[in-house]
Amino acid sequence: MIKEFTSEDIEKLEKLYRAAFVNSLGGFKSVVLIGTTNSQKHENLAVFSSLFHIGANPALCGIIVRPSEVPRHTLNNILELKQYTINHITDSFYVNAHQTSARYDENISEFKEAKLTPEYIDSITAPFVKESKIKFACQLEQKIDLEINGTILLIGKIIYVSIPDNCLMTDGSVNLEAAKTITVSGLNSYHTTKKIGSLSYAKPATWPKEINL
Amino acid sequence: MIKEFTSEDIEKLEKLYRAAFVNSLGGFKSVVLIGTTNSQKHENLAVFSSLFHIGANPALCGIIVRPSEVPRHTLNNILELKQYTINHITDSFYVNAHQTSARYDENISEFKEAKLTPEYIDSITAPFVKESKIKFACQLEQKIDLEINGTILLIGKIIYVSIPDNCLMTDGSVNLEAAKTITVSGLNSYHTTKKIGSLSYAKPATWPKEINL
Repeated sequence: MIKEFTSEDIEKLEKLYRAAFVNSLGGFKSVVLIGTTNSQKHENLAVFSSLFHIGANPALCGIIVRPSEVPRHTLNNILELKQYTINHITDSFYVNAHQTSARYDENISEFKEAKLTPEYIDSITAPFVKESKIKFACQLEQKIDLEINGTILLIGKIIYVSIPDNCLMTDGSVNLEAAKTITVSGLNSYHTTKKIGSLSYAKPATWPKEINL
Repeated sequence: MIKEFTSEDIEKLEKLYRAAFVNSLGGFKSVVLIGTTNSQKHENLAVFSSLFHIGANPALCGIIVRPSEVPRHTLNNILELKQYTINHITDSFYVNAHQTSARYDENISEFKEAKLTPEYIDSITAPFVKESKIKFACQLEQKIDLEINGTILLIGKIIYVSIPDNCLMTDGSVNLEAAKTITVSGLNSYHTTKKIGSLSYAKPATWPKEINL
């Protein structure tokens, strides 16, 4: 049986039900930990599922921040120091990652509370997550207020990447499964993945072929 | 061994290598087919991996469109008629979905070329993909030009949803695995998923518990 919803049906849904529903409608999402610090060197760590690719040259990614929700310390820190780290999550610490979404006071470090380890690399001032295999740092390039619903789009330029060499394929793609990176659906369901296949560049007169990376 | 990249290293990468690298750095992504039509009723279908959640009330999602790339017909159609459908992809037609990224001429239907079936539901004027289990329609609410790299953010309001009732959980979340929805990494690698667990709402003084949905 198929269930259908109109605009009006969605608007009438109970608030938490609607949040769970709309958050999972778009399919699987990236899930990462964003590490920041402020000028008082208070470290902050928050789980995000709104990371998306914007472009490769310059290397840009976006995140959506809802000022009224938990990652507001993350937002304040990024606006203050313009730098943040993005750290992949594996199945061995996904519960720790989820715990960073609890509403801790500003002066409490989610690293400590969620039992994760801050790590500083080179000249990057924001803390990485030592437990993460794939991690990178961004510099804030642009803040766009989405007046339609009061959220904020932060666009960052990727200024540093750390990746195990066995996760980097010959064509430049990243083997996320080799890094045990997981994915999320909705607000709170975490998943591992299994590759079906990698396909050749699509052209009009042919059919995609499976390729070995 | 860990491999590190600075900004300068990323800028110096060969173009296709960099595209594969940066596109897969962010982790797993949603992958969907976007169906549109124009005023001449030419149907268009294109695979997108940039869908992201913006808010639940109103129900909003975003996509990033690169005007110079294949989905330009999709962009033109959305700007003309303000409506588009978003259709989940399963492992039974992921090769067909990938084929929609070939550079077809404007008057050619990717539905036909990729062997997928257009489906019209109720008053939605844009075509859905009959083979998709979870599908929804959006009305264009806002177009934001991202001058930083010439891409465009389209924000849509979800105005219709069709979902098998066995995929809708009691809390409103969607069981994407029951719908066989897949995920993508990078430009061309497709993956099924296996749930690790769903976790309770995080609170400071406790530790997340696994919950049954």
